[in-house]
Amino acid sequence: MNAPTAPHALLPQIHQRDVPSELIAALKAQFGMRCSTALAVREQHGRDESVFDVPPPAAVVFAESTADVAAAVGLAAQYRVPVIPFGVGSSLEGHLLAVQGGISIDLGRMNQIVATHPEDLTVTVQPGVTRKQLNEALKSSGLFFPIDPGADASLGGMCATRASGTNAVRYGTMRENVLRLEVVTASGAVVRTGTRARKSAAGYDLTRLMVGSEGTLGVMTEITLKVYPLPEAVMAATCAFSSLADAVKTTIAIIQMGVPIARCELLDGNTVRIVNQHSKLGLTEGPMMLMEFHGSPASVQEQIATVQDIVNDHQGQGFAWASTPEERTRLWTARHNAYFAGVQSRPGCRCITTDTCLPISKLADALLDSVDEANAAGIPYFMVGHVGDGNFHMGYLIDPNSASERETAEHLNGLLVARALRLGGTCTGEHGVGLHKMDFLVAETGAGAVDMMRAIKAALDPHDIMNPGKIFAL
Amino acid sequence: MNAPTAPHALLPQIHQRDVPSELIAALKAQFGMRCSTALAVREQHGRDESVFDVPPPAAVVFAESTADVAAAVGLAAQYRVPVIPFGVGSSLEGHLLAVQGGISIDLGRMNQIVATHPEDLTVTVQPGVTRKQLNEALKSSGLFFPIDPGADASLGGMCATRASGTNAVRYGTMRENVLRLEVVTASGAVVRTGTRARKSAAGYDLTRLMVGSEGTLGVMTEITLKVYPLPEAVMAATCAFSSLADAVKTTIAIIQMGVPIARCELLDGNTVRIVNQHSKLGLTEGPMMLMEFHGSPASVQEQIATVQDIVNDHQGQGFAWASTPEERTRLWTARHNAYFAGVQSRPGCRCITTDTCLPISKLADALLDSVDEANAAGIPYFMVGHVGDGNFHMGYLIDPNSASERETAEHLNGLLVARALRLGGTCTGEHGVGLHKMDFLVAETGAGAVDMMRAIKAALDPHDIMNPGKIFAL
Repeated sequence: MNAPTAPHALLPQIHQRDVPSELIAALKAQFGMRCSTALAVREQHGRDESVFDVPPPAAVVFAESTADVAAAVGLAAQYRVPVIPFGVGSSLEGHLLAVQGGISIDLGRMNQIVATHPEDLTVTVQPGVTRKQLNEALKSSGLFFPIDPGADASLGGMCATRASGTNAVRYGTMRENVLRLEVVTASGAVVRTGTRARKSAAGYDLTRLMVGSEGTLGVMTEITLKVYPLPEAVMAATCAFSSLADAVKTTIAIIQMGVPIARCELLDGNTVRIVNQHSKLGLTEGPMMLMEFHGSPASVQEQIATVQDIVNDHQGQGFAWASTPEERTRLWTARHNAYFAGVQSRPGCRCITTDTCLPISKLADALLDSVDEANAAGIPYFMVGHVGDGNFHMGYLIDPNSASERETAEHLNGLLVARALRLGGTCTGEHGVGLHKMDFLVAETGAGAVDMMRAIKAALDPHDIMNPGKIFAL
Repeated sequence: MNAPTAPHALLPQIHQRDVPSELIAALKAQFGMRCSTALAVREQHGRDESVFDVPPPAAVVFAESTADVAAAVGLAAQYRVPVIPFGVGSSLEGHLLAVQGGISIDLGRMNQIVATHPEDLTVTVQPGVTRKQLNEALKSSGLFFPIDPGADASLGGMCATRASGTNAVRYGTMRENVLRLEVVTASGAVVRTGTRARKSAAGYDLTRLMVGSEGTLGVMTEITLKVYPLPEAVMAATCAFSSLADAVKTTIAIIQMGVPIARCELLDGNTVRIVNQHSKLGLTEGPMMLMEFHGSPASVQEQIATVQDIVNDHQGQGFAWASTPEERTRLWTARHNAYFAGVQSRPGCRCITTDTCLPISKLADALLDSVDEANAAGIPYFMVGHVGDGNFHMGYLIDPNSASERETAEHLNGLLVARALRLGGTCTGEHGVGLHKMDFLVAETGAGAVDMMRAIKAALDPHDIMNPGKIFAL
């Protein structure tokens, strides 16, 4: 781990609340060895993939049941101490950081698949189940869960950040795929939202309110998800382009034509080079689209024919097919590793990741200008995009000891977000606001909407103990 | 209009708040002729398709802009008087009824299509635009808006009740298809939620919180929706079955196979007879499925082949195709008129409509038992279902002057809802809670979740002026 020179410089609020020793004693009495105050454990639970370093939580509770979570939150509520849920720690926006101190609740041991209902295309899981674990468990029933943010994130974490990733262009995000939740509220009460029915008009959509609330309204302890029949046919391909503009325009045309493409990803030439180095892939080192098609054999062929026409119209160099499941896995693993490949391409660096999402017709303007700006600034970066959704990420690879690099990256990020908002987009497609995008959120939605969020938070968590200091300052 | 003997018997709260004459004077000063206190106008705005009759609102304001709505709500807030948004009055659950008095804001004149972005597959409308008006306007751009609750409802009303209807099985409900809202809050402020990007992780999902909030959290004044390319091929068909059980089992199999069917509707034999009488259709008078397939010609043929196999397995009598657009329109118009055909089949009756939605594997149990119970009770009824979603409606046709018929209908409704909840479903798939399902909502989601809803309402509308007395009692 690197120790940046000015770790807290960009943080909106670092105000460590007192964690009374009585609370720690009560947690130890309740949880025994499952409440740890060891520094290594606390540090592991006080960092994520963001650039921020703050003091770790005062203790970590390893919850094994909803009752555990309710007990831990209940005790924290009694002492008005912050509670931060922890899944696998793959957040990019500082969601896990104990900016106001408090305790971390590790949900990793709540990793049971509670119920599978293949006949209803639903599954109910505990929050510590990861997406890969779920798909492994579903395999024998011919089903899969499509939401795939790259990292093998926990489903609780994916709910909390309203995650998406590849596949969202066809199957939607966590917003569209969560049917029902069990939640421990700020008072330690257990509340259920939603049912296993596919649709409902039964009162406020508390499920959707919780999804994307980043741990600030409660801890999700059980999640019912939609799952899908494994497609009869799956075809994956890469396609190289001589210019990034052609690749982006190809994407726009695919989406505007309504092709039900399952994955539609973009890497710039530099990123392909980084991925090649990391994963030994031998891809053509220019702008590249990665695509996947799902459906019946005939429908997949039809989608491919349409996309081939569009590719030809934009000087694409034709498809290189990943014809076997193994090749397909290798290709997508490489794509998923782009983030780590990027970070490893500059030893010792840390990564500031952008996450704007645009109306599809504005994607070219937004993406190409942002790449030009990064090139002009001379900062190392990688660029990957779930471009079928209008979502792309610049990963600025900064020397954590260089204040000027960090400033440059944040400046570029600011330009990029301002452009996205001007073009009708959002500052975050899938990573969430966390610590890093609070000001952007206000710029995006206006103070009025953020005040509504604050009012809801204050109503449901009057002592502001649920992951405080994230999304907005109270 | 009939005058039921005990009009308020089933209403949870009728407490007419005072509407001061100063408010009426201020509204008249602000809106002139666009503020009406004429009894006929007030009565028209104080009734919907529900069985309840309550005193009408004290005045009706015809809003023509967001500023009008903000001004009207601002004045109402000053006097702490209830505000009830009104679209076209097609609610089935008493949403429009002035159970606590107050003023109605008619949004029918806010019927402009603000912006169409065919290149992004989005459209922005005012809340008084109806779904048919929108589709007429979209036609020339080769796009359509699929959500279709039958009635030519306003899009504001459809947002407010989280509407769906036919087509939801493929395209989702209002939950999935609203990107962005402009909302006038309880203080008269104008707030915007969401962006035109397809996905976002930017803070609490206020858009989804507003969708389905039944006017209790604010008045929606601008709505940005997803739209879709008109399918290349559309095929519609009916299929008769000798038993209702076979038809339901066919539906279950179609959904479990993952066929991307666009519409999958069910009518029982009695309802087909009623629809025949009303729309002169000459359909075989037995249980019947109505289906529609969207896609490329090849994909539509593929879907049809799969469904034909399933139909054969369940003793279906084969498809009768609506091969021309005119025949298709005639068929779907007849389906959409089933409600009115039902009501007209018993002159002078009123209709108590049920709306449960089930996990698909439980649909047969729920639907068949509910039909048996209605038959055993000897009450006239019709039955239609968006069965592809697991959603069906019984329409009990009661004599409004017969307390015993009303009790029978409510008793049957209670049995039906209890069964749906037991089987993992919801009391309302698409009509909303309104006045009629408050107790069912508590049974479904538990007091804890309803308390969360109450806390949110109290936080965003501290004087409880936004459509009070709906969804839950404060």
